[in-house]
Amino acid sequence: MNPAYTESLNKLIAELGRLPGIGPKTAERLAFHVLKTGAAEAFALAKAIADVKKNIRQCRICFNLSESEVCSICSDTRRNHSIICVVEQSRDVISLEKTGLCKWVYHVLNGHIAPLEGIEPGDLMIEDLVNRVRAGGVEEIVMATNPNLEGDGTALYINSLLRPLNVKLTRLARGLPTGSTIEYASGSILADAISGRAPMD
Amino acid sequence: MNPAYTESLNKLIAELGRLPGIGPKTAERLAFHVLKTGAAEAFALAKAIADVKKNIRQCRICFNLSESEVCSICSDTRRNHSIICVVEQSRDVISLEKTGLCKWVYHVLNGHIAPLEGIEPGDLMIEDLVNRVRAGGVEEIVMATNPNLEGDGTALYINSLLRPLNVKLTRLARGLPTGSTIEYASGSILADAISGRAPMD
Repeated sequence: MNPAYTESLNKLIAELGRLPGIGPKTAERLAFHVLKTGAAEAFALAKAIADVKKNIRQCRICFNLSESEVCSICSDTRRNHSIICVVEQSRDVISLEKTGLCKWVYHVLNGHIAPLEGIEPGDLMIEDLVNRVRAGGVEEIVMATNPNLEGDGTALYINSLLRPLNVKLTRLARGLPTGSTIEYASGSILADAISGRAPMD
Repeated sequence: MNPAYTESLNKLIAELGRLPGIGPKTAERLAFHVLKTGAAEAFALAKAIADVKKNIRQCRICFNLSESEVCSICSDTRRNHSIICVVEQSRDVISLEKTGLCKWVYHVLNGHIAPLEGIEPGDLMIEDLVNRVRAGGVEEIVMATNPNLEGDGTALYINSLLRPLNVKLTRLARGLPTGSTIEYASGSILADAISGRAPMD
């Protein structure tokens, strides 16, 4: 708190300083930028921040971020709604969509099972996924949980629930990350790459 | 060159300083360690260095590092000699062997094709690989060149040579590196993972 600044300026500095990666100095610099900038611009920023909190909610079907009851992906009729890709969080949807290869729809779990952190299956949107599959019309579930301990555990759990429902269960390929070198790949990555080796075109 | 040191000490410091990652200070410290250590130990180090240069050569069959004409892998009869895994360098053999999953033999190319660096196909052990396949008894070639531009290019070139020889051509799986997160995976990694998605067990 700098007593030379007014109360609102101090407040803005404090608020900006709570953002991740923004230290006190950067917060001060940003605050002074807001102070110097035109009123319209500053209000636009303020509105944008408030709007995000007001307008964004979860899609009723896939629990992805959405501004309407059903998100733009779920309401896209050109997509193949019989393939559901299961991800941990909305940011994963964005990453996958950027590839331009995904013609499917999604199901966002809102996290992964982690009993030690107190996250039980009931805290995730797993039951909703099972209900979507039960409702019919689903041919394939693509597991796109993170390829680590928690993500794999979550995928296995969901797998066990969906297996009796007679739906094709796949997961994203494991192997060498494109652009890497074999010399520095870990044993588990190489093991995945060896056991999953694929025919060359 | 420190005039306070004897000529041989200066020489040792200079030689050690040529090693990658060893700066002048470290070289000096290492040199003094050699100076203080027992004669037997120092001679053992010197001999080890010389022996490596004297004794290690390339296996006549796979061009892996070897102390005899045929390396320990090529002379291991418990291995499946009908599967040849093609790698760029000997260090890749070590990485793959550490997984304990490789029941095959190898072929070390001694690099990758890189015309801009002046490395042409003729500089690598490619012709020797084609001759190995021609000699018969080979069922599968597993391409384990690095999953980057040069490695892929080299694999494609070799592929084009081997295709007429009627041998199964595979490559290590591409996809998400185990232990990573989807959010930070690059587009090309995700593209590999999506197109190569595999059934869940």
